[in-house]
Amino acid sequence: MWRDLTPIGRNTTTNGYRRYAWTEADADCREWFRAQTETRGLTYEVDRNGNQWAWLGDPTAGDAVVTGSHLDSVPDGGAFDGPLGVVSSFAALDELRARGARPTKPLAIVNFGDEEGARFGLACVGSRLTSGRLSVERAHELRGADGLSLPQAMERAGYDPDAIGPDPERLARIGAFVELHIEQGRALADTADPVGVASAIWPHGRWRFDFHGEANHAGTTRIEDRRDPMLTYANTVLAARKKARIAGALATFGKVSVEPNGVNAIASLVRGWLDSRAADEETLAAVVGEIERAAVERGRRDGVDVRVTRESFTPVVEFAHDLRDRLSGLLGGVPVLPTGAGHDAGILSASAPTAMLFVRNPTGVSHSPAETAGEDDCLAGVAALAEVLEGLACH
Amino acid sequence: MWRDLTPIGRNTTTNGYRRYAWTEADADCREWFRAQTETRGLTYEVDRNGNQWAWLGDPTAGDAVVTGSHLDSVPDGGAFDGPLGVVSSFAALDELRARGARPTKPLAIVNFGDEEGARFGLACVGSRLTSGRLSVERAHELRGADGLSLPQAMERAGYDPDAIGPDPERLARIGAFVELHIEQGRALADTADPVGVASAIWPHGRWRFDFHGEANHAGTTRIEDRRDPMLTYANTVLAARKKARIAGALATFGKVSVEPNGVNAIASLVRGWLDSRAADEETLAAVVGEIERAAVERGRRDGVDVRVTRESFTPVVEFAHDLRDRLSGLLGGVPVLPTGAGHDAGILSASAPTAMLFVRNPTGVSHSPAETAGEDDCLAGVAALAEVLEGLACH
Repeated sequence: MWRDLTPIGRNTTTNGYRRYAWTEADADCREWFRAQTETRGLTYEVDRNGNQWAWLGDPTAGDAVVTGSHLDSVPDGGAFDGPLGVVSSFAALDELRARGARPTKPLAIVNFGDEEGARFGLACVGSRLTSGRLSVERAHELRGADGLSLPQAMERAGYDPDAIGPDPERLARIGAFVELHIEQGRALADTADPVGVASAIWPHGRWRFDFHGEANHAGTTRIEDRRDPMLTYANTVLAARKKARIAGALATFGKVSVEPNGVNAIASLVRGWLDSRAADEETLAAVVGEIERAAVERGRRDGVDVRVTRESFTPVVEFAHDLRDRLSGLLGGVPVLPTGAGHDAGILSASAPTAMLFVRNPTGVSHSPAETAGEDDCLAGVAALAEVLEGLACH
Repeated sequence: MWRDLTPIGRNTTTNGYRRYAWTEADADCREWFRAQTETRGLTYEVDRNGNQWAWLGDPTAGDAVVTGSHLDSVPDGGAFDGPLGVVSSFAALDELRARGARPTKPLAIVNFGDEEGARFGLACVGSRLTSGRLSVERAHELRGADGLSLPQAMERAGYDPDAIGPDPERLARIGAFVELHIEQGRALADTADPVGVASAIWPHGRWRFDFHGEANHAGTTRIEDRRDPMLTYANTVLAARKKARIAGALATFGKVSVEPNGVNAIASLVRGWLDSRAADEETLAAVVGEIERAAVERGRRDGVDVRVTRESFTPVVEFAHDLRDRLSGLLGGVPVLPTGAGHDAGILSASAPTAMLFVRNPTGVSHSPAETAGEDDCLAGVAALAEVLEGLACH
């Protein structure tokens, strides 16, 4: 399975993946999913939001045990974030069948669309739309760098843009959802366990900071006449790190856009995107508030106007304790750990009992080609997932 | 004349001009120049480097009096930087003819190609190539954001890429070159003079700072595990301002590019371009050296590798004192002032006696749509240029 998926959307210069939602690379990944479904004689469905489903048993019977993840990537992402969960789902199903397990409940594998948000700036779009956590109106406002809106991009990829929206009937089919994912950190590497179970997802959000100054000639404008937003941006980047460190939180500026972005022109506008996360929502709000105050204060000195827009926010997710404990029991007491990363499982947790399995990532690196997992650990992940699916669906 | 030129390459959102070398907007500007030449019955020439010339009299007679400027723009530049010099040249020629002045030397108007360097990152490419200050080899290495090299872009615009190179014969025709330009600062606004004469151009250069860190997940990577180049970049931006201020120099980061530039990914690479200028070369070297040291030092703390590449450097230009004093005399003792901005006149000053006239810019703003000049001041500029051309070519 990996062999067919590996070359899709890989940039040969960076070795990173560029599988953005509703692009050609994404279409190739989705075609791979459809082919896997067909090979196994599963029932193939694409829902109104473009999420792909592969069903064993009657999709409409209810109380289904669903597993899966996503196939899209961040810019120059690694091979495992997303695809490991989908590939392991098919492999775990193969393992169940090889064992002759007889599910008493429907089983499904899902590929959620646009999990990373690399194209339209909002993560988990497929699961958000399905669960009503993203309104159709807002989906129409999402726009990529190429100027296309999300519905326009979906239409170009061959989907019906008028169909998108909440899908409570499909959600109601799900009795439990389990997402397997590569660990995005070193906790399992430290405890020397190949597999772990998630306890919670930190609350997190994205804030856009717009720094408005005044374009001018870099070679002739006196320092005292400048209103240079790059200075305010730079100071805010450093303030974000400091405030987060003090609070035990995370705050990152990883994306920036500059106008006019000329070597000999003082910028008129710098836009920086802040990604921030913390163990609880109060801490997160406090950290972001302090970063914003620092930006506004420095902006006053630089003659730069600062505007902050919250582009997304995901509250803390506590995964269903029953399910979590059941998984941990089925797997013989593996470590239970929180994560700072958002997932479709986090979105779905408001609609159905949801859990996550993590597979050890020795580098701890994620969203980068350096992200990796050993073959033995991947197989241990498949075995654990098969164990969980059998435990949930066959008894 | 202005009416035909004004709409070309204007972005209707920003009201700024995007007339980048060898693009369609540039071709339209060049067609405008050709038409102006034809209307006046001047001899039209395009030299091997794509610079346009309009000749009154025999181009090969020697000791020509040449005026002109450029028609390309920075990203979202103003209407006057460049075009004011070209339009004023044609208007001054019209004025000379209306007066019945009889030039004893050839007169020419020139439009130098790619003065701003907005597309390939190097300014004054047309005059640099002609004067041998840019080698053909290096010109082939210049590459724009669209991946095209300078010769490829010229070829697409209909020019012969194999022809580019030094043009000593054409340079030898020039007895004096005078460039009229909008002032890029407030010196004339402060002295209440519509027109001034340039004394010198500050030495200046562009340095590319590459900050290499490690891409990772913004939501899961512990602060102590990060190698975030955005931090090193931010600190360098602030250090540049501080070092420049202390030295009485200028240092600006106005252009930045980030990889992978994703909201939830720590950057792997941040590239920032430093534009720096000072009254003398020693001060400039000292300021840039201090900025580089600050970057490397901070990089060591951030686990970020810093590499600095000098992309261009223009030594101090002292305009020919004879010509400068003659102009000042012809114009009744107008102010004589230095500038921090590079110009084709600065490049040519090594090959021929060269001077510049500045027209008052009440905002002092430049490289921005806010750049402006009053109609009376523009007419004063034309009158001054006509006076100078008559003085140099008719006696």
